[in-house]
Amino acid sequence: MSDHEAPMINGVVEHKIGEEVLPFVEDDYGGVIVEMNNPMDPKCFVAKLRYSFTQWRSQGKKGVWLNLPLTQVNLVEPAVKEGFRYHHAEPTYLMLVYWIPEAESTIPLNASHRVRVGAVVLNHDKEEKYGTLRGSGVWKIPTGVVDEGEEIFAAAIREVKEETGIDTEFLEILAFCQTHESFFAKSDLFFICLLRPTSFDIQKQDLEIEAAQWMRFEDSASQPITHKNDLFEVIHRICSMKMEKSYTGFSTEPITTFFDDKLGYLYLNKQDMNNHIS
Amino acid sequence: MSDHEAPMINGVVEHKIGEEVLPFVEDDYGGVIVEMNNPMDPKCFVAKLRYSFTQWRSQGKKGVWLNLPLTQVNLVEPAVKEGFRYHHAEPTYLMLVYWIPEAESTIPLNASHRVRVGAVVLNHDKEEKYGTLRGSGVWKIPTGVVDEGEEIFAAAIREVKEETGIDTEFLEILAFCQTHESFFAKSDLFFICLLRPTSFDIQKQDLEIEAAQWMRFEDSASQPITHKNDLFEVIHRICSMKMEKSYTGFSTEPITTFFDDKLGYLYLNKQDMNNHIS
Repeated sequence: MSDHEAPMINGVVEHKIGEEVLPFVEDDYGGVIVEMNNPMDPKCFVAKLRYSFTQWRSQGKKGVWLNLPLTQVNLVEPAVKEGFRYHHAEPTYLMLVYWIPEAESTIPLNASHRVRVGAVVLNHDKEEKYGTLRGSGVWKIPTGVVDEGEEIFAAAIREVKEETGIDTEFLEILAFCQTHESFFAKSDLFFICLLRPTSFDIQKQDLEIEAAQWMRFEDSASQPITHKNDLFEVIHRICSMKMEKSYTGFSTEPITTFFDDKLGYLYLNKQDMNNHIS
Repeated sequence: MSDHEAPMINGVVEHKIGEEVLPFVEDDYGGVIVEMNNPMDPKCFVAKLRYSFTQWRSQGKKGVWLNLPLTQVNLVEPAVKEGFRYHHAEPTYLMLVYWIPEAESTIPLNASHRVRVGAVVLNHDKEEKYGTLRGSGVWKIPTGVVDEGEEIFAAAIREVKEETGIDTEFLEILAFCQTHESFFAKSDLFFICLLRPTSFDIQKQDLEIEAAQWMRFEDSASQPITHKNDLFEVIHRICSMKMEKSYTGFSTEPITTFFDDKLGYLYLNKQDMNNHIS
């Protein structure tokens, strides 16, 4: 491999494989992150890794993150044999981690939850918008998964658009629920969002949807499934109260957060906050 | 390996390596789950995997999940070369997946969020309970990560107990916020919980905590950091309103949920619900 060949001019220059530190960047917590974006022979990788650890140990480094893209799958087994453990994985890469200090690991836990939204859209005629799952014969509210990096309210707006073509404005999170073992050991948070339509022509777009239509609130509430399932039933009770303006959920406020001063959104009872100010 | 040796008595019994389907269970979505709990030679694994796929294809199976414990790390490279992709990983195992049909994959997305709680404990004297991070010099409310499979309200009670020794009862989620890229690409949901103490003697327990004490509400609100950070400031505003009973957050109700009839907890504005009934 050409990056191990040192030039030999007029004298001896030694450059042994393994006396080179793997390319890395430092993280904010006294650790290092190695991204193996280029192929490497497993033996060469192990030699460099061992040499790197001598350096990192002497520098007092803590966690060593090792990102192995799918194309470098041949380095997974050598890394585990050197003591790395899996941390998380996405379709295109596997992240491993090694904790150097004797002291207890402060490596952050892996992501534990999926986040989903269900969207209730009420128009001026007090009709709700419903899609239906292909073949299920049940009218249901648009639902979907919140993507990594996506705001909850944005996911609700996106799902309604994808499933029905309707443009909406986010009003409130009416309620949410948590369930467990939604897939394997992971948990699930489901946010029920209330939206106001800003366009009204339904154009079914998603392949998974058999039909989409505006439905009278009373008709959607009278489906047998509404009475079979606590959650459906509560959503309809909250919507009834909402139409009488006797229920307040959580709406959004942009905010800078704890510790790291990141921008985010706070969801809170703004009606109570506003009443208090006025 | 003994499980490939068929008995040979009085006649010819052929039992070729690779004409055996890997052990699997069916999932609820037309897929199969293979857990490689026992070691296997990689060549034998590939032969069996290919034979299994001929069976699963003819049976119209969709997703094939492959769980490789850390001890079977030697099967990761062969699996990827057969077309598997990473789905998720935990310290002790890697989950890969293969989508058989031509149609678009309906494999669920990996977990995208970590969930954390912050706990405000108000006692009758209107003091809040605060811990402080070792060395930071800032009094802060107890915080921590919600474990997989743990209720949000239970995590708040547990964190207060771990950090201060105080027993508490969960009252409400006052607000929550979402931030992104909290580690690598993952997002973070932070729930601010209000609790009522049922014991009062502070016994600092967690190694990460330098000190814990009851602190007068006014004193905790007057720390410089409270005014530097939107979120701290909002928490204190909400707590002030809460002490005047002029703010309502989300409290819990046990519920059976959508689709799969799982038990879970709904978080909603129960005060509005109760006012409506009475």
